Amino acid sequence: MPTRTGRHFLQIPGPTNVPDQVLRAMAAPTIDHRGPEFAAMTARLLDVVKPVFGTSGPVVIYPASGTGAWEAALVNTLSPGDRVLCFETGHFATLWQEMAAALGLHVTLVPGDWRRGADPEELARRLAADTAHRVKAVCVVHNETSTGVTSRIADLRRALDAARHPALLLVDTISSLGSIDYRHDEWGVDVTVAGSQKGLMLPPGLSFNAVSDKALAASKTSRLKKSFWDWAPVLEANRRGFFPYTPATNLLYGLAEALDMLAAEGLSQVYARHARHAAATRAAVRGWGLEVLCADEREHSGSLTAVLMPDGHDADKVRKIILERFDMSLGAGLGRLGGRVFRIGHLGHFNDLTLAGTLAGVQMGLDLAGFPVDPTGLGAALEVLRTG
Amino acid sequence: MPTRTGRHFLQIPGPTNVPDQVLRAMAAPTIDHRGPEFAAMTARLLDVVKPVFGTSGPVVIYPASGTGAWEAALVNTLSPGDRVLCFETGHFATLWQEMAAALGLHVTLVPGDWRRGADPEELARRLAADTAHRVKAVCVVHNETSTGVTSRIADLRRALDAARHPALLLVDTISSLGSIDYRHDEWGVDVTVAGSQKGLMLPPGLSFNAVSDKALAASKTSRLKKSFWDWAPVLEANRRGFFPYTPATNLLYGLAEALDMLAAEGLSQVYARHARHAAATRAAVRGWGLEVLCADEREHSGSLTAVLMPDGHDADKVRKIILERFDMSLGAGLGRLGGRVFRIGHLGHFNDLTLAGTLAGVQMGLDLAGFPVDPTGLGAALEVLRTG
Amino acid sequence: MPTRTGRHFLQIPGPTNVPDQVLRAMAAPTIDHRGPEFAAMTARLLDVVKPVFGTSGPVVIYPASGTGAWEAALVNTLSPGDRVLCFETGHFATLWQEMAAALGLHVTLVPGDWRRGADPEELARRLAADTAHRVKAVCVVHNETSTGVTSRIADLRRALDAARHPALLLVDTISSLGSIDYRHDEWGVDVTVAGSQKGLMLPPGLSFNAVSDKALAASKTSRLKKSFWDWAPVLEANRRGFFPYTPATNLLYGLAEALDMLAAEGLSQVYARHARHAAATRAAVRGWGLEVLCADEREHSGSLTAVLMPDGHDADKVRKIILERFDMSLGAGLGRLGGRVFRIGHLGHFNDLTLAGTLAGVQMGLDLAGFPVDPTGLGAALEVLRTG
Amino acid sequence: MPTRTGRHFLQIPGPTNVPDQVLRAMAAPTIDHRGPEFAAMTARLLDVVKPVFGTSGPVVIYPASGTGAWEAALVNTLSPGDRVLCFETGHFATLWQEMAAALGLHVTLVPGDWRRGADPEELARRLAADTAHRVKAVCVVHNETSTGVTSRIADLRRALDAARHPALLLVDTISSLGSIDYRHDEWGVDVTVAGSQKGLMLPPGLSFNAVSDKALAASKTSRLKKSFWDWAPVLEANRRGFFPYTPATNLLYGLAEALDMLAAEGLSQVYARHARHAAATRAAVRGWGLEVLCADEREHSGSLTAVLMPDGHDADKVRKIILERFDMSLGAGLGRLGGRVFRIGHLGHFNDLTLAGTLAGVQMGLDLAGFPVDPTGLGAALEVLRTG
Repeated sequence: MPTRTGRHFLQIPGPTNVPDQVLRAMAAPTIDHRGPEFAAMTARLLDVVKPVFGTSGPVVIYPASGTGAWEAALVNTLSPGDRVLCFETGHFATLWQEMAAALGLHVTLVPGDWRRGADPEELARRLAADTAHRVKAVCVVHNETSTGVTSRIADLRRALDAARHPALLLVDTISSLGSIDYRHDEWGVDVTVAGSQKGLMLPPGLSFNAVSDKALAASKTSRLKKSFWDWAPVLEANRRGFFPYTPATNLLYGLAEALDMLAAEGLSQVYARHARHAAATRAAVRGWGLEVLCADEREHSGSLTAVLMPDGHDADKVRKIILERFDMSLGAGLGRLGGRVFRIGHLGHFNDLTLAGTLAGVQMGLDLAGFPVDPTGLGAALEVLRTG
Repeated sequence: MPTRTGRHFLQIPGPTNVPDQVLRAMAAPTIDHRGPEFAAMTARLLDVVKPVFGTSGPVVIYPASGTGAWEAALVNTLSPGDRVLCFETGHFATLWQEMAAALGLHVTLVPGDWRRGADPEELARRLAADTAHRVKAVCVVHNETSTGVTSRIADLRRALDAARHPALLLVDTISSLGSIDYRHDEWGVDVTVAGSQKGLMLPPGLSFNAVSDKALAASKTSRLKKSFWDWAPVLEANRRGFFPYTPATNLLYGLAEALDMLAAEGLSQVYARHARHAAATRAAVRGWGLEVLCADEREHSGSLTAVLMPDGHDADKVRKIILERFDMSLGAGLGRLGGRVFRIGHLGHFNDLTLAGTLAGVQMGLDLAGFPVDPTGLGAALEVLRTG
Repeated sequence: MPTRTGRHFLQIPGPTNVPDQVLRAMAAPTIDHRGPEFAAMTARLLDVVKPVFGTSGPVVIYPASGTGAWEAALVNTLSPGDRVLCFETGHFATLWQEMAAALGLHVTLVPGDWRRGADPEELARRLAADTAHRVKAVCVVHNETSTGVTSRIADLRRALDAARHPALLLVDTISSLGSIDYRHDEWGVDVTVAGSQKGLMLPPGLSFNAVSDKALAASKTSRLKKSFWDWAPVLEANRRGFFPYTPATNLLYGLAEALDMLAAEGLSQVYARHARHAAATRAAVRGWGLEVLCADEREHSGSLTAVLMPDGHDADKVRKIILERFDMSLGAGLGRLGGRVFRIGHLGHFNDLTLAGTLAGVQMGLDLAGFPVDPTGLGAALEVLRTG
Repeated sequence: MPTRTGRHFLQIPGPTNVPDQVLRAMAAPTIDHRGPEFAAMTARLLDVVKPVFGTSGPVVIYPASGTGAWEAALVNTLSPGDRVLCFETGHFATLWQEMAAALGLHVTLVPGDWRRGADPEELARRLAADTAHRVKAVCVVHNETSTGVTSRIADLRRALDAARHPALLLVDTISSLGSIDYRHDEWGVDVTVAGSQKGLMLPPGLSFNAVSDKALAASKTSRLKKSFWDWAPVLEANRRGFFPYTPATNLLYGLAEALDMLAAEGLSQVYARHARHAAATRAAVRGWGLEVLCADEREHSGSLTAVLMPDGHDADKVRKIILERFDMSLGAGLGRLGGRVFRIGHLGHFNDLTLAGTLAGVQMGLDLAGFPVDPTGLGAALEVLRTG
């Protein structure tokens, strides 16, 4: 590996560039997780974490990565053999439904082309057909990190309401929370799954379940086996500012700092910033003569853009050249998209000039990889930034 | 809370005082967990972590706290209804067997008085009675964090061998690993459970399963439901230096640093240091006119000392005075020991003068709490330190 | 060097143990020293630094260590051949007057035995004899870091006032500022010299001149050559929040944090804490059967205690044993006190249990070095801490 | 000030973006500056610092900013009234000769137009005229931070040699050292003045004098008054790994780290990288339709580029817009260039994509400020980066 000069450009769609003040906050000495100082910190944290979820209800924080919070959402609310309806929006939706099956649930997968979000009309059809209410939960990935497509949760909620269907709505916001407008309460989400390492600007190691009253009620009768992920002892201990087992104290320090940063910027400004950077990125992609993977204008992601390479061009080769020549990490195509797309993360602690550098690197890398890139692409992006 | 001056004395038995170089290592920027730099780091880490477990086999690292690694040890090796034999050595042994029951196992609990470790003779009796080999696993906490008692794993192994019993041996080393001599391979342990926040000198947030060949074989047929904790995809991804889901990158940076520190000191020296500090602490306790909770000289813990207060003296009052007057956190009595003991952690990144300050604080706190403390206790400890 | 475990005990009388939050504050990215963010920080800093000097006048901050601020005090106020009256209170007073001579001043040195502070009566005599007012400045070290003796500045001021002598009063507070009560304005000090690395709890690299109106007036006619140390361009640039040359930005971050800490504790409480730790230390020293170097009860230092070893006992051997066995640094005897004293620093970011550990280490080290130490010394110190 | 998102672009020509590993190195606890650990560190540091100066002789390290090292170079080698020949290459050369005058030297200033370096032919003429060898020193700024012009030191040396003139050659490398090829020994420089906050990638607070044998000899007879800056006690104490007064320990930690980084990259690669980034920047400037201030192709700076705005366009307005809209700091025009130029720093810890982001920000800022910028400028720079 050549010697690094300057900052690495970590433009994968997460983990994101952790702000230096968050890293410094995390470097404070670990304290007694059963003492009064910890209790005061936790009490505040459990409160200030709510707005970013758009909830006034409880948020369970796990000392674990996001995948664990997927498991928690399922095992707390469902019972062996329960039917769950999953939308195949991409690689992570696929992994989540595989997890559901592994945990003993009966999964119905709505197939997808990995270029569109969960279809509210298809959901309506499925629910209408389920007159017996055998579907106990609908699982949707809000923002598919593998494709850069954002499902329209409000519309999916409307479908559930219209069908008067009692299924729980479980939503993965791992790559949208803190980057893309999200409203747990308003949209009637029952469990929101989140992780620390994307829009929350932390290293990986914390994950979250925001929990509706309906989900809480479901947890009382859920029969999937659980211990570590069990909400009940967490919620119980949280009441006194503690956790039932050792929490990831130093990541909690970072969370407090990151939430303060988001609040200082203002969540609506945070979302607008991400949307603007996404628009600039799409302008570059199209200017270069390439296609954005997301096929529905209503569903473009604010946090990442997946770029489809034409046949005969290897997306992984582009990424490798960019890493070696320009010290920038981009996201690979995952699963069935392997080698066909690369993904540009533009989320978290990020700004105009870092985006400009990012897009300049992609443009040069495409050229070096032999793609006949139209160099006006970068200019188109700058035009969005300059005027936006 | 009064303004803090100087360093807090974090003398609970974990989380321990994290070395500043570990905190700084953790403050490095998060990197791409699918890139070559990460793969190189992981490959090295998976190798250098082995000696501290005393194993040449695989060690699974979870981005989760220690409780999760308990769950992993069970769900990877056992099936619903399997019988496990658990020793009630204290609060954490109790919690672990409660978890086993919650996960659908059939637990036989060997009762204990919380002042002694798991009894090898009792194990022999239990195994002898189990001619049908219905016990599939024996669960033991190596070092009971709630009592300061260290079970003799080698002797328990001998009992299993003598009985030619095929049960798996699952051992929790959360508060012993990196502090007290431990030998996964030599003692024929099948799963060793560990956490980051004690002898490994890290903040909480990583946990471990060291896995024997026999445990690995058991995992092929285990039928407890699992996904996040499943060893198979971790071991598979580890082969290429990766993890199946986002790892806790910054804690891994800290782990690399901490393992280098342990190796530089030398593990046998690390164990000797802890034993010496434990001996000095017991000298102080007895000098003060108090009783060490651990009732068997062979089982004194190297990492913490639980001190039994006589009737009429509230251990929590002592702790509160010490926290408020001397800014030192001590461990509370847990479960049935609540209010009756306090626990002094002397593990991790620690040295003679910090121990001296710790014991001075306890001595003054006992006095302020109204216990007629014999002030020669501290002198007795210093004598151990000076001459040892 | 053996592997270090736990925190080093840095008990020299400065640099002191820098609080971890100060180190983290210093790790923030360097910013443009001519931009609006810097200007805002500087404006605030120049304001909040004043109370610790006890002044409402300007404080000049140098990106240099304390010795430089000595030079600044002289070259800004005096002219070649000017007569200065210096009190030989110890090693640093000696160095300062050597500097004065090197810079072309005419030094009159009042000899001392290095166990007492500057004598107000002797000053009165000298001033009375100087009817021609040839003495232009009196130089005094407030707290002699080499001896642990604190001169009585208020009494020296009274002597100047009583004599109606116009000499400037220049005072070195390098090891007293932020530890021992000090009042630049009230005591009529003309230039107060300070450094960052003692009571201000920073690493070395910043130094200070608090400047009276009279000193400012003197600087207009001073003819010693100066450029880097010249107050005028600093005061001029400070008006807009800037410095005439590149400031030590990251140390200024640390200064802001440290001043906030001192303000949060409250300066009077800071001084009381130091005095209490000094009293406990003296109780230990006398309990051990040793002599405190400071010979006047009115002049005991709050920030350090120099301990005189009896003939036949080498103080440096004691220090070496303590460093090697207990990883604690103590101050050496300097100049004519070499080998005869060692110095215990108890200033800055410090607390009762760290002092207890420190004194325990000294007690054990004295014993190991062959001094027949009375082990009740530590107990006497703890008695001060427990009851104080 | 709007909330900052992402990293600030600190593109002034110093202080530069300090690498995060250097900031972390500086956050290590301060140690005893008179102990064995410090001595070992210093001994190594004084050795590894030499290559970056291109010297095998001593390098004096001051706990002070660069301006102080200017003063040190003068006061250690010269005597009151000595004649020094200074070249007016820009703002900093002007400040240095003002300092020389303030310190009592007799300055002859060779006027300049601030667009060219020190002229070797003019030097030859001046030396030829000085048959009495009244000029004791020639002062040159290697890289004028105010103009982006690099004087040709080797050619100036040749002029001195050709004239067989004994004057000392004093060179300021504050913004070139560690960025632009420099050879103290080979070019016969007598004192090289440097600072920490530019190519050495540290915060401000350390400065340097590399000293030739001839300069050392001159220091024995120099009669300018000095104490803090005096080389003799520093060189004396350095022999044992110490300093005569408290060094800036934590900045020394950072220096060790930074020097390791430069050595790992390789100095010739470091210089080539800077030259390439400078070339790309000039391509952008010319592409935008603007003029680079430096008027001689042989003298373009590798560390910064000063851009001349045409009449009617205010450079400070451009900078202000860029700071407010894109969170990037650029250097202002200094002295007589105020409002007419802005300066782009491209030195220190820096890479291609950060440069691309920088130039994108300048391009957008010029547009927003009303300058009819040709947007192909950025493309021209990328072409240099892509093909270089």
